[in-house]
This record gives sequence, structure tokens and C-alpha cells, in this order.
Amino acid sequence: MDIAVIGLGLIGGSLLRALAARGHRLLGYDADPATRATARTAAARAPAGGRWQVTGSARDAARNSALTVLAVPLPAVPGVLDDLAAVGYAGLITDVTSVKRPVRELVAARLPAGTARYVGGHPMAGRESSGFAVSDPDLFTGAAWVLCLEPDTPLPGWLELAALVTSLGVRVVPTSADEHDRAVAAVSHVPHLAATAMAAAAAGDPLTLTLAAGSFADGTRVAATRPALVAAMCGGNAGPVRGALDEVIVALQAARAALDDPEPVAAVQRWLGRGHAVRAAWPPKAVDCVELPARADILLRLGRAGGWVTEVAADRRTVTAARPAPGAGGDVG
Amino acid sequence: MDIAVIGLGLIGGSLLRALAARGHRLLGYDADPATRATARTAAARAPAGGRWQVTGSARDAARNSALTVLAVPLPAVPGVLDDLAAVGYAGLITDVTSVKRPVRELVAARLPAGTARYVGGHPMAGRESSGFAVSDPDLFTGAAWVLCLEPDTPLPGWLELAALVTSLGVRVVPTSADEHDRAVAAVSHVPHLAATAMAAAAAGDPLTLTLAAGSFADGTRVAATRPALVAAMCGGNAGPVRGALDEVIVALQAARAALDDPEPVAAVQRWLGRGHAVRAAWPPKAVDCVELPARADILLRLGRAGGWVTEVAADRRTVTAARPAPGAGGDVG
Repeated sequence: MDIAVIGLGLIGGSLLRALAARGHRLLGYDADPATRATARTAAARAPAGGRWQVTGSARDAARNSALTVLAVPLPAVPGVLDDLAAVGYAGLITDVTSVKRPVRELVAARLPAGTARYVGGHPMAGRESSGFAVSDPDLFTGAAWVLCLEPDTPLPGWLELAALVTSLGVRVVPTSADEHDRAVAAVSHVPHLAATAMAAAAAGDPLTLTLAAGSFADGTRVAATRPALVAAMCGGNAGPVRGALDEVIVALQAARAALDDPEPVAAVQRWLGRGHAVRAAWPPKAVDCVELPARADILLRLGRAGGWVTEVAADRRTVTAARPAPGAGGDVG
Repeated sequence: MDIAVIGLGLIGGSLLRALAARGHRLLGYDADPATRATARTAAARAPAGGRWQVTGSARDAARNSALTVLAVPLPAVPGVLDDLAAVGYAGLITDVTSVKRPVRELVAARLPAGTARYVGGHPMAGRESSGFAVSDPDLFTGAAWVLCLEPDTPLPGWLELAALVTSLGVRVVPTSADEHDRAVAAVSHVPHLAATAMAAAAAGDPLTLTLAAGSFADGTRVAATRPALVAAMCGGNAGPVRGALDEVIVALQAARAALDDPEPVAAVQRWLGRGHAVRAAWPPKAVDCVELPARADILLRLGRAGGWVTEVAADRRTVTAARPAPGAGGDVG
């Protein structure tokens, strides 16, 4: 398969390496000339049969590819879509951006209807460091990889992409852009805001920072992330983050009320119960494996049940799927 | 020095082992007969010269000791204080409880004025597991160990205790009960509440829990702690926890307002600045070492500046201290 990867940072570079190593023909491009030079040098050193080419423009990379992966930050997506439109691109498009509705809207606005087929994607993998220099063909092994299924998503394109990325050892989670954006607001974006709020609360008091140990270290770890990245994630997903943040604020106000109770120890213990049960059961301890028909409604139901696709049959009629076993945890309500 | 340790869990047991190994004469007691039996067996296996005795009552352990360490949970403290009063105990008393004002008040209420001398303590060390079986003489190495200095704390007793615990390789942080309780509310108790609130927000949605990765795992880790322990910590320190929690709620409401801004990305990025700076600078990268007079006001100033005592001079007139170097981080305001 001829595949273009536009944007050669940690995610794009890792994907380029991983897919090239599996025998696909890869064309990479990055807007930064130094990154292109690094990627070219690395290609020359890659094992024969697992190399890639670096082009001088996004248009050259995409023009004759069957699949184009947008691995650029959200603000750079419109420009790349314009490049695809300019060359009359008619292949499959996916992306790796951490919010999905804005990309879906950009694709609808920028590409002529009925030309390219778009499937929104989000690999749940990352590192503290970034750039092609730290890219790693094994970055995605075992990670969840969201592939969005909307009413207008072409199912054959979705299955083609799912077959491709499951070959990298990922767990493909079928869901919609809106469900994805709500979920990551709760488990990624709000944790960044809470970590930052707790770190700020320790500001200006050296004694407090000297007494800080494990629960502070872990609870505030992601507050060290570059603010521009966190702001782009949270601000670009403002609606769902608002909802998830409101839920956490309401829960903390309930904790505040428990502390005001005449019996604060008992009241706080009652308040703790639900969150403790969720965390103690996470991640789920066991999964059931099943064979499912490759139908959009069935795949979306699988995603909502906390399941994922591990393999797509060669005839594209069924998928192998896994989901948390009943009572294995992860479904505590 | 003859030392009694009452309560032989993880902290008490580790302290018993560590002090016995340094040649002190140790007497241990635990209310649980099985724990006493385990501790007796372990003593017989300890290297000669580093053994301890296990007594049949708290009174027998304390009666002739120069120092008694209360290593029991807060609810058991009154009973042990009554035992000390019953034998007319006149030595030094310290404790290892995670809130300091309630213990200070119990000592004032239960012991006749002018008999025993009390110095509140809190080693900032712990493990997920508990009990004598997991006790470890090296548990405290490198940890911060709070020793409280109140207007009525006997300075010679404080220095005696500081000399003893610095011999275990700890960083002794001089502070008051109230300052300690405020600090641990911010860096330990509120992080437990926030972790639990975020875990609860993911309840009932299997898709969300499948997409949860690093920031959820770390941000909610301590929500898995036994609720009874967290409730005792937070409920037993309700006043300071209220204040620290209010500060975090106000910060999260400001984040909420930033998401409502017409330019949410820029507004969130401005909001992130302060907390990011605190976390990026923590822990401090360098410390200055100084020799200080052993005076209560100077020691308290050291603690407020984020510093600690590493050694007490043999004549008890000076201490060796360390504090974050200017610009080393940790003092971001």
C-alpha cells in the first residue's frame, strides 16, 4: 500500500517507521527542513525493505498515495487539506489529532464532497519528549487507537485502516468523534487541569513543596507538560472539557460538604466509595474475545461496551474483538 | 538510649529495626498479639547487637524508657497516653501521625502538665502495603521527617530527637503543627480527593475507561487507597483540608471561565502558567548547606524557607541545614 505521512514528529515519525518495516511504500513530509533532513538520513540507515522516502512537499507525498495520514498539530490541518484538494486527492485520509470533531468539520469544509474518504483517528500513545529524533516503530504496541465511525464514514475505508493499524499490535476502538471527545475530556484533559490547579495551590510556600511526596508527584505530573500543548488540547475541545470539568467541580464541592459534616470522617468515607471502586477496578483484569460481523452498528456497540478490535478478517466481513469480561472491572457504575 | 515504640506496623516496625541497628535499646509493643509474635520472631533472627524486646503491654515498654514513640493510628493515641500517665511517665514523647494538631491537643488533655515532654513528628515515608511484615530499616532514608516546634516545645528534647532521627539519614523539617497540617492538606490530602473525584467522573462509561491512559493512571493512582485511611486523614484534618480544597475549586472554576472565553486556547494557556511553573521547578534542583545556631526562631524560619536539618552538633548548639538554593526552583511564587 502506498502511504503518505504528513508531519514527522513523534507520532508521524513512529508511524512512518512502523509501516515501512511492514513492507508498505512510505512517503513522508514535514514542513520543517531540518526534520526532513533527519528523516532522510534515518531512511538511509534503515534496513533494506523497510525504508521510506522524504518528499519536498505535502502534495508530492500525497498525490499518488492510497492513504494519507495527517500527523500535524490541529492548526496545521487546514493547510494540508488544501494541499490535498489542490492535487485532486481521492484516496483515504486519516489523522492522529487528539480532538476529533474539529478535524471532521475541517475535512467537510475544505475538501470537495465525494472526493476523498476520511476516517478520524487518535492513537492513545505518547511520550514526554517529542520530534522525529525520538520516534520509535514500537510506540503503538498495545496502545488503544481510536478510529471514528460516523454515519457518513465509508465502512470499507474504516476496515482497511483498522486492518492496517491492527498489524501494528494496537487495540482499535470504534467510536464517534463526539463520544471520543467526551471520553478524552474526562480521562486526559481534565486531569491536566486538575494537576495544574493542585500545583498552583502549592505555589509560594516552600515548606509545602518540601513536604510534597508521592501523591503530589503523581497527581501533578502532567502539570509539567508544555502549556501550549495542554491549552491546544483543552481549548480545542472546550465543550466536552467544560462538561467533564463541571462534573469534577461538583464532586469536589460534595467532598467539601462532607468535610463540613458533624462526622467528617464517616461522611468523607461515604463520599470516597464510588471513585475508589472505579479506580480499584481499573484497568479491567480480564477480557472476553469474540468474532463479530463487520457492521457499523455492531462496532459502535463494541466501543461503547469498552471493547476494541484486534484483527480484521482478510475478506473484511468479520473482526476479532475483545471486551472487558463481566465482573472484570472497568464497568463499575 | 532506651526507646519504646508503641505500635509495630510499617512505620513503627521500621523505626524499631532502624534504631536497634544503631545500638539503641528498643522495647516494642503492639495491641495485636499476632504482630507481637511476628516481631519477637524477627528479633531473634536480627543480628546480635541489633535486636529488640517485645513487651506484653504499652506500660511495660514505656515505664523506664527515655523516649516513647507513638506509632499507632490517631484513634488509638488517647489510650496509649492514658497508659503513659498511669505509669507516671516523665520521658520524651513523639508520634508519627499524619495530622499534628489533634495529637498535640490530646497530649495537653491527657497528660499532667509538666511531666512528659512532647515533640510532634511525622515521617513523610510510606508504602502501599502495611504491617510489621513489610517493615524495613531503610524506609526513612532520604525522606522528610517533620518535628514540630511550638512555643511550649522543649528545645533540648526537640534537638535530642532531631539528632536521633537524622542518624537514620532523614531530612528533619522544623515547623509548627498548624503549618504542617496546612501543608499536607495541600500536597497529600487534597490530591487524594481530586484523584477520587476524577475516577468517579469516569464511572459507568466503559469507553472512557478503555481510552484512559497515562494521565488518568497517575492522576487517579491514590484513589485506590483504602477509603478508611483516606477518610481518617482528610476528616481528621478537616479545617486545613477545607481551605486547600477551596483553593483548588476556585482554580478549577477559573479554568472553567477560561474555557468560556471567546479565545479559549489563549485563555487556558494564560491560566496554566502558574501551576506549570511550580511543577516544572519541583523538586528543587540544588540546595545550599549552612551551619545555623540551634534556636527555635531560626529553625522555624529554616522550615518556612523550604529547608531542613541534616545533623545536630554533639554540643546541641548548632545544626547543619540545607535549603533550596535561590533560583533552584521550589520557591516559585
